[in-house]
Amino acid sequence: MLLSKIAETLGIPIPDQCTDCEIGALCSPESANENDIVFLSNPKFAAAVETCNARFVIVKNGQTLPGKICLEIRDPYVGYAKVAQLFEDTNPLFGEGFSESAIIDPSAVIHESTSIGPGSVIGANVTIGAATRIGAKCIIEKECKIGNGCRIDSGVVIRYGCSIGNYVIIQSGAVIGSDGFGNALENSVFIRIPPFGTVIIEDNAEIGANCTIDRGNFEPTVIGNGVKLDNIIHIAHNVTIGENSAIAAQTGISGSTTVGKRVIIAGQVGFVGHINIGDDSFIGAKAGVSKSVDPGSKITGYPARDLMTMRRIEAAQQSLPELLKDMRKLKKELAELRTQLGHDQ
Amino acid sequence: MLLSKIAETLGIPIPDQCTDCEIGALCSPESANENDIVFLSNPKFAAAVETCNARFVIVKNGQTLPGKICLEIRDPYVGYAKVAQLFEDTNPLFGEGFSESAIIDPSAVIHESTSIGPGSVIGANVTIGAATRIGAKCIIEKECKIGNGCRIDSGVVIRYGCSIGNYVIIQSGAVIGSDGFGNALENSVFIRIPPFGTVIIEDNAEIGANCTIDRGNFEPTVIGNGVKLDNIIHIAHNVTIGENSAIAAQTGISGSTTVGKRVIIAGQVGFVGHINIGDDSFIGAKAGVSKSVDPGSKITGYPARDLMTMRRIEAAQQSLPELLKDMRKLKKELAELRTQLGHDQ
Amino acid sequence: MLLSKIAETLGIPIPDQCTDCEIGALCSPESANENDIVFLSNPKFAAAVETCNARFVIVKNGQTLPGKICLEIRDPYVGYAKVAQLFEDTNPLFGEGFSESAIIDPSAVIHESTSIGPGSVIGANVTIGAATRIGAKCIIEKECKIGNGCRIDSGVVIRYGCSIGNYVIIQSGAVIGSDGFGNALENSVFIRIPPFGTVIIEDNAEIGANCTIDRGNFEPTVIGNGVKLDNIIHIAHNVTIGENSAIAAQTGISGSTTVGKRVIIAGQVGFVGHINIGDDSFIGAKAGVSKSVDPGSKITGYPARDLMTMRRIEAAQQSLPELLKDMRKLKKELAELRTQLGHDQ
Repeated sequence: MLLSKIAETLGIPIPDQCTDCEIGALCSPESANENDIVFLSNPKFAAAVETCNARFVIVKNGQTLPGKICLEIRDPYVGYAKVAQLFEDTNPLFGEGFSESAIIDPSAVIHESTSIGPGSVIGANVTIGAATRIGAKCIIEKECKIGNGCRIDSGVVIRYGCSIGNYVIIQSGAVIGSDGFGNALENSVFIRIPPFGTVIIEDNAEIGANCTIDRGNFEPTVIGNGVKLDNIIHIAHNVTIGENSAIAAQTGISGSTTVGKRVIIAGQVGFVGHINIGDDSFIGAKAGVSKSVDPGSKITGYPARDLMTMRRIEAAQQSLPELLKDMRKLKKELAELRTQLGHDQ
Repeated sequence: MLLSKIAETLGIPIPDQCTDCEIGALCSPESANENDIVFLSNPKFAAAVETCNARFVIVKNGQTLPGKICLEIRDPYVGYAKVAQLFEDTNPLFGEGFSESAIIDPSAVIHESTSIGPGSVIGANVTIGAATRIGAKCIIEKECKIGNGCRIDSGVVIRYGCSIGNYVIIQSGAVIGSDGFGNALENSVFIRIPPFGTVIIEDNAEIGANCTIDRGNFEPTVIGNGVKLDNIIHIAHNVTIGENSAIAAQTGISGSTTVGKRVIIAGQVGFVGHINIGDDSFIGAKAGVSKSVDPGSKITGYPARDLMTMRRIEAAQQSLPELLKDMRKLKKELAELRTQLGHDQ
Repeated sequence: MLLSKIAETLGIPIPDQCTDCEIGALCSPESANENDIVFLSNPKFAAAVETCNARFVIVKNGQTLPGKICLEIRDPYVGYAKVAQLFEDTNPLFGEGFSESAIIDPSAVIHESTSIGPGSVIGANVTIGAATRIGAKCIIEKECKIGNGCRIDSGVVIRYGCSIGNYVIIQSGAVIGSDGFGNALENSVFIRIPPFGTVIIEDNAEIGANCTIDRGNFEPTVIGNGVKLDNIIHIAHNVTIGENSAIAAQTGISGSTTVGKRVIIAGQVGFVGHINIGDDSFIGAKAGVSKSVDPGSKITGYPARDLMTMRRIEAAQQSLPELLKDMRKLKKELAELRTQLGHDQ
């Protein structure tokens, strides 16, 4: 990769002191060779970067490192992401075209630039756009629509009728469009409620490995533009997740809950159904969220409370056993005084 | 779907004021057209139902809505479930019969009315009853028995020797019959304990997407009649779940624990092994259950406690930081009085 | 199985009072026949073992049971594990050799003693050692290395470039080598960070059903020798798990966290990223671990604390509502005394 291409990607000129040249790889400081590039975002790693073999470093504006050629930008971590995308191998894993062993319904309409890996099954009336890469043994059931430039990793199941936008990534083992958990109770027996809705995943969204996203009952379940889901996340029927929200692993969102835009949700969080999480909120790890929260809220804990309140409660819990002892002592001492001063006991 | 058929399903006559007619679809109020049917269960949605386009509404006995033809039953939500099943498309997703690309062991015995999707693998000595629908790329390993009228969604793995009853639904990505987590520790090294048991899933049970159900060590792991499992649930070896219990997403049950009948378990709950959860119990979301509970118990929290006790504790936690301050103040004031009144400090 | 073979496996002679003979099966007391063998580890089951049909029992050194032929060893549970391995059927589930329907890249190098089940896909330049058993519909993407004697169950996905040692077990639905959850935030939009690392799973490790193990960003994610993972566990990018550690179901470990050797982690635990868990630590169920801990630590709770401290806090919580009432009463009584004694209020 040419240094000039990297600089262009970062939106900066080539550093003054050097001419264009070939960069070998984007690396960690530990594994870098002389012609590789590394990045310095967290000051904790400054020493490792300074002493590493790489000559080229993506740094924060104004930062210099002795003996290094520094590419300065506002946010080196963003720079890292962009340069990593440059170096990414985006060739289809199983080669171009449609694998001979793929089982493609004749009614499916698939752009010729799209690749389909061995053993994948494409159902009736499926449409798939251009330059989408589908791995091995994926199942795209009937009536699904998939856009351009998507990456559907090996072993993904997209059930019937779901819509996937452009540049969406769905990782292995994810199930899109499973039935929601809908049951009515009659005489202690559950009567299943079949769903009629679908799932819509909008552009640039990413779905982690082994996630499950249930279809809606009537209206669709919606994963908004640019939403990022980590692994093993459960999204129930009729949930809506607003654009550019991110959710860490093993979180679960119950039916009909709405998550706003730019919401950050940590791992192993649980949400009850039918609540609204306001835009730009933050939800701490393992929180149990049972009520709607306003935009910009920061909550954590179980039951979830305001973040600072919860931190104070958690700190105070440490003193709880001592508090009980103190209380016993105080009650005794106070009773003594009251007796001494002629109060009824 | 004829109105008369819907009324019959609900166990009621056609409403007085109308003759039989064709109903287009079961819909949400938002999406309904004039000839569609909706339901009104939660009074919160009364206004939406009253102003929607649908002429037909499933309502609670005695309820009337201006301008609507009301089908009155005891529980409209149950009515919704039953009518939804009427409208459900139960045709095999990949067509009738055995797909050409399915890989079926010659020793398997499969009823001719059963459908098998593309690329599914059916192992040796498997038996499958009538009218069962098996999706694409399912794996049914050797010696499994599957009953009549089941729905095995694309990508399910049923490992060797497991038994599935009639009218069972297993959703995509679920793994039935994985090895349990059995290890003996010798000199800090784990020695694996191979299991010899299987999994039995009884009639009308439903298993959500990406669930895992481990086989028993000797006796089988049992999912009882009519049990409903949401997505991403872990059921360990030798667990037994009694009939008509329901478990929400991401819950995990450790080895040899017994869950009774008609137990309701919310999401992200964890159970230790070797305990008994009595019939008709309720377990709140995210609870950590480490002890057996009597029938009819209602528990929540971590460690799990009686529901009302836990709610009081949770409410009190809010005051804990203030309580610590109060205690410091009281200790100081009481010490002053004690000094004043001649007590030793 | 000959009794002499079982005794040899346990490292003991055949018991004095008997000659060699054929043992039918290793069983639970409930299901045992006369010529079967059972084990007695937990004294709770002594009565069941004493009254069961089996003549042969693995017991603790020095223990005798009337009418039984006792095989005495130091730890009968370890004996159970070893004898269970003797009785295990280790034939490939779909027969020897490479299934005709497997899709094997011509560049793959696979030992002839390895078996590959129907429909499995083996990518370019994959190498697989001897006597490894690969189930149906597994996907081994390009450039993977798999050792000898492994068991890769039906439906496993091993993504490109990952290394699996010898005698590793990976259960159905597990995804090895998914992309980590790496994103940089620029103007409220997440920029994806493609990973360049892989996953290394060392000898004798076991990965449960539907687990996900993300590849590292630069350096690999490492699952050490003899590590045992239960089902539905999430291991993020660049995590390292030291040898002979065991992790129960539904636990999640965030990026770059290091777990030491011989660490025991219970179910549904969550770890933040970039922390170190010392060797020989124990982490209780559902703990939320946000800080590094020293070797030998025993922690639990959320936030995680020392186990005994946490138990005391949990016990004290029971009294928290009462404590609040006591505090209100004491404040009132103390105020009265202070007034009586001439203090300012």
